[in-house]
Amino acid sequence: MEVKSQIEEQAIAANKAARSLANVSTIVKNDALKAMAEALCLCKNYILEENKTDMESARQNGMSESMLDRLMLTEGRIEGMAEGLRQVAELADPVGEVVSGRQLANGLNLTKVRVPLGVIAIIYEARPNVTADAIGLCLKSGNAVILKGGSEAIRSNKAIAGVLTEAAENAGIPKAAVQFIDSVERAAVQELIRMDRYVDVVIPRGGAGLINMVVQNSSVPVIQTGVGVCHTFVDENADLVMARDIAFNAKVSRPAVCNAMETLLVHEKIAADFLPAMLKRYFDAGVKIFGCPQTKTFDTRVEPATEEDWAKEYGDLRLSVKIVKDIDEAIDHIAEYGTKHSEAIVTRSYESARKFQQNVDAAAVYVNASTRFTDGFEFGFGAEIGISTQKLHARGPMALPELTSVKYLINGTGQIRG
Amino acid sequence: MEVKSQIEEQAIAANKAARSLANVSTIVKNDALKAMAEALCLCKNYILEENKTDMESARQNGMSESMLDRLMLTEGRIEGMAEGLRQVAELADPVGEVVSGRQLANGLNLTKVRVPLGVIAIIYEARPNVTADAIGLCLKSGNAVILKGGSEAIRSNKAIAGVLTEAAENAGIPKAAVQFIDSVERAAVQELIRMDRYVDVVIPRGGAGLINMVVQNSSVPVIQTGVGVCHTFVDENADLVMARDIAFNAKVSRPAVCNAMETLLVHEKIAADFLPAMLKRYFDAGVKIFGCPQTKTFDTRVEPATEEDWAKEYGDLRLSVKIVKDIDEAIDHIAEYGTKHSEAIVTRSYESARKFQQNVDAAAVYVNASTRFTDGFEFGFGAEIGISTQKLHARGPMALPELTSVKYLINGTGQIRG
Repeated sequence: MEVKSQIEEQAIAANKAARSLANVSTIVKNDALKAMAEALCLCKNYILEENKTDMESARQNGMSESMLDRLMLTEGRIEGMAEGLRQVAELADPVGEVVSGRQLANGLNLTKVRVPLGVIAIIYEARPNVTADAIGLCLKSGNAVILKGGSEAIRSNKAIAGVLTEAAENAGIPKAAVQFIDSVERAAVQELIRMDRYVDVVIPRGGAGLINMVVQNSSVPVIQTGVGVCHTFVDENADLVMARDIAFNAKVSRPAVCNAMETLLVHEKIAADFLPAMLKRYFDAGVKIFGCPQTKTFDTRVEPATEEDWAKEYGDLRLSVKIVKDIDEAIDHIAEYGTKHSEAIVTRSYESARKFQQNVDAAAVYVNASTRFTDGFEFGFGAEIGISTQKLHARGPMALPELTSVKYLINGTGQIRG
Repeated sequence: MEVKSQIEEQAIAANKAARSLANVSTIVKNDALKAMAEALCLCKNYILEENKTDMESARQNGMSESMLDRLMLTEGRIEGMAEGLRQVAELADPVGEVVSGRQLANGLNLTKVRVPLGVIAIIYEARPNVTADAIGLCLKSGNAVILKGGSEAIRSNKAIAGVLTEAAENAGIPKAAVQFIDSVERAAVQELIRMDRYVDVVIPRGGAGLINMVVQNSSVPVIQTGVGVCHTFVDENADLVMARDIAFNAKVSRPAVCNAMETLLVHEKIAADFLPAMLKRYFDAGVKIFGCPQTKTFDTRVEPATEEDWAKEYGDLRLSVKIVKDIDEAIDHIAEYGTKHSEAIVTRSYESARKFQQNVDAAAVYVNASTRFTDGFEFGFGAEIGISTQKLHARGPMALPELTSVKYLINGTGQIRG
């Protein structure tokens, strides 16, 4: 009960602050972002100290090396966060943008303008840089933000949030516009996602388990992000050199991220030409392959894929490979096992390219390019709060405009409805 | 358990049909809509017969006259539904619209296009015309639709859905694109809103109780519609004749709809000039007034307003009236009790108009006009599936574009990420 009242108090405070924040000018917000960047650099040592304590506890608790790497802060990483805040200051402010408008027949002027969403709750796991990113993007788009990070990073997150909040307040951002939840109890998340009265949207950033828990239990509208079981389909008439480069890049360049490929689909007609060299290249790079029975015939190192493999986001150097009889089977496989994130075809056929892009239901559908490009910065948006894999509100990389809503302003001269 | 498997079967069928429907051309969809309109008119007598049975049961169950009026079909109403379908056929198809695009520095072409949401579930109460509206709008925007109407209208809805589905199928719309749930068990709704695996969005249309139940329990993303506790604020320097016309129209022209006013807020400096004639006009029209203590001093017929009155969507000829000391108190009152639907100020002050539109957080914020204009047809959208009172995805009147999502198409020449 105490957790609930604490969270409710913070949600109410954020909701109130959001009303003031919606009126803060772009100039004040930009100056605040720059001051926050400055403060991060000035308080580097304090933040590093706190991070060190988090790292020690995590090591004692047996955290894996890849997770430890995500948790760790360095001077360079803190400078990177500061640079990120400065970049957000340079981006156009979406608030107040006139989206469309017209004069109605009765003389009413109708104008659709962008407004902040209000209060955004971000629930995330072990990466402390999310704290700075989320605060920067939410404030720039005029939203109050409630942060609930993973308990492993609690000291790092609290230090970053504390430094940024103080700098923001000194620069004219309403006190309480940033709420940091420092309870590490699991109940805190459960309470937060039921605060539909005060919170306008919740964005979970993390693994499938976290996201599913939020989707199943939230009464606050959710934007699902980031789970990516992405495929590359090598069509029968693909340029095989291009296909190998793309398929290699999609898997190996950064396997831990959500736009990395998890399953390679190969047209059976080119499997014999394409696969042997491809598999060798993967094995040379340390990739572990789980394949369908046909795939296994091309390399004895291939292990059998189970039903579970097709649906798994490995997030590491594992890959599943399936030979399909045609593009339709590839599209059906993606419909069955994909997470609607990023999907690619490599082909020289106009017909196949068109069919794949028309029929694959995903945020990003590629022809002859690596799925690794699905990213707010790569797409030229200048920022990214996450990649939406749902269809409502935002789909694909979300930047500042995706953190806004709209309202209609209607200006009349006494019109009444007949 | 049987209800669950029945609903799941229908959801799976709709999901599958949605994939085909996304590929159906605008021409086929438009021809289908016209054929459906034709079929409705041809089967008028059958539908009227079924409606008669619903009406008889409803009367026996003691349904109120206003609800009976909503339930009742006539030849004219059926022709109205048919005309609605023909109008939807005339509207531009949102599917395939290129929203934006650019060429990235690395030569990738990025195109953002509109695509159907997929499967839309509509949960509604006693009005059978929603059945035809929803089917028409969902099919035109390329979405499969699952309909769950109120049990009072089950025979009418089933008849309408049956006639329309048959006509649609004959015209080339995939079988199963329209799913009508004929279970009248309450559990059917509970199961439907947990089908996040197959259903992309649920839109509840009805009273606050239905909407809140869906919001609290759905794992499918929800678009909230229609609950409107709308205010009109008469500023100190308003044109009082205009203010009375607007305030009268907003309450009396159609009190049962969601854009009707529920609370009139009056600046204390003009209360003595404005209220006596205003209250008389309301009483003459049969309006029942619940007022703050100050309001009561202007007319003895005013009854005291309770805390509950400020938050209530009367939906009939009741009105609450409050005298406020300034525009800030009006804005605060709206923030506290409003449902973010439609809010109006009547004023001659530029400063007040700007302040009100900037600070009131609602889908539609009016200056010098009646809140009754919040409507897809009035706004010139040509259609309306409901009025969103939430901030995610769609806000205000929702027409065809609001029933779509987007996807990014990325076309390359072998690009890989460095």
